[in-house]
Amino acid sequence: MNLLLLEDADFIAADRARLEGRRLKHLHEVHRAEAGDSLRVGRLGGLMGQGRLLSLAPDCAELEVAFDQPPPAKLPITLLLALPRPKMLRRVLQTVAAMGVPRLVLLNSYRVEKSFWQTPFLEPAAIREQLILGLEQARDTVLPEVVIEKRFKPFVEDRLPQLAAGTQGLVGHPGNYPACPRAVDGAITLAIGPEGGWIPYEVEKLHEAGLQPVQLGERILRVETAVTALLARLF
Amino acid sequence: MNLLLLEDADFIAADRARLEGRRLKHLHEVHRAEAGDSLRVGRLGGLMGQGRLLSLAPDCAELEVAFDQPPPAKLPITLLLALPRPKMLRRVLQTVAAMGVPRLVLLNSYRVEKSFWQTPFLEPAAIREQLILGLEQARDTVLPEVVIEKRFKPFVEDRLPQLAAGTQGLVGHPGNYPACPRAVDGAITLAIGPEGGWIPYEVEKLHEAGLQPVQLGERILRVETAVTALLARLF
Repeated sequence: MNLLLLEDADFIAADRARLEGRRLKHLHEVHRAEAGDSLRVGRLGGLMGQGRLLSLAPDCAELEVAFDQPPPAKLPITLLLALPRPKMLRRVLQTVAAMGVPRLVLLNSYRVEKSFWQTPFLEPAAIREQLILGLEQARDTVLPEVVIEKRFKPFVEDRLPQLAAGTQGLVGHPGNYPACPRAVDGAITLAIGPEGGWIPYEVEKLHEAGLQPVQLGERILRVETAVTALLARLF
Repeated sequence: MNLLLLEDADFIAADRARLEGRRLKHLHEVHRAEAGDSLRVGRLGGLMGQGRLLSLAPDCAELEVAFDQPPPAKLPITLLLALPRPKMLRRVLQTVAAMGVPRLVLLNSYRVEKSFWQTPFLEPAAIREQLILGLEQARDTVLPEVVIEKRFKPFVEDRLPQLAAGTQGLVGHPGNYPACPRAVDGAITLAIGPEGGWIPYEVEKLHEAGLQPVQLGERILRVETAVTALLARLF
């Protein structure tokens, strides 16, 4: 937790916040914080700044806070991701938030196991929890938008062309394709497949919607690693 | 497991291998393999090729194998990493092997908790296990070399200059430094700090050994994410 992220409900005055639960536990156990300590704070969806611990008890802490700094810029990207397995999903959500992706579409694919759609980690509160952890890690305050698309074809045919309009559309896919571009200038729409990859039909449909296949070398990376590697290369 | 990695002890003839344990379980439960199936195989430290399942029982499988293909090239890099916390260490070892890092130095740093050096995950067999998982993921057969350096100063003063000679030396460190270079040509020696970063003394000592600080933007990434992002940008 490199940023203490405060929500509206934490505020007891314009410049005062009260903490309980996970973040308080973290202050005690990881930061080993003491009254008087300064720490970086952010207001969810708003500015970042400094907080000072006025009091710190086992069950409650109170801070004086001041906000004066914008959060870091987001990357100009919409990321489409075949729904990963539940354990990977949680980490990917953290990574996506930490790397500054503003919009994530979790998409069905032939190789997504049906059971993955049943995970409680897809509940809005569970998604939000992982995104918050990523924001706290990277020092950002703005939650990414997460869209869930359980049906591949209607999404790719009816909504993707509009979503990708005016952007450079890319599909990460192993094979005899051009290498993923580096340090691009404009906005990107990037689709990353499931473990085992997109099937040819899906690559074709994504291509029809304006996304060009690109590859990242012969090594097959886990989804989380592929997301980070592609983003680091693109921006 | 995108590659079934075979070790000397698995071979019952030059072109026959017998499987038990974890890899067999994976074939049953994840691949749902059947006798007659073909799958990609590799020989640890050697070539890759194709295997055919001759028989498959709950407790044992037999394969006919042929090897004809070299593993993918490694990256021209030596990676120095402040020892991460045990859970992160395991994932980082997988990532390092998957991305093609040939040599990893796990190094002490002021912000590495002393208890991290006590973890059983640093036992040679435990390190090897995670590296193998990374090789199986990425389809590679060659184990990275992992060196453990429990003392920062003697390593950085006495051994690092020689290790980094003839390479471009870099220290990943947040701050007012040049951005990490992209798509470099030659060999790299890259040092990545612990959670909380290197302390100024350490950055200075690494600099004296020939490593220039470079930054990756204002977002603070987890160690595993930073490793992937820096490698993807450099190569």
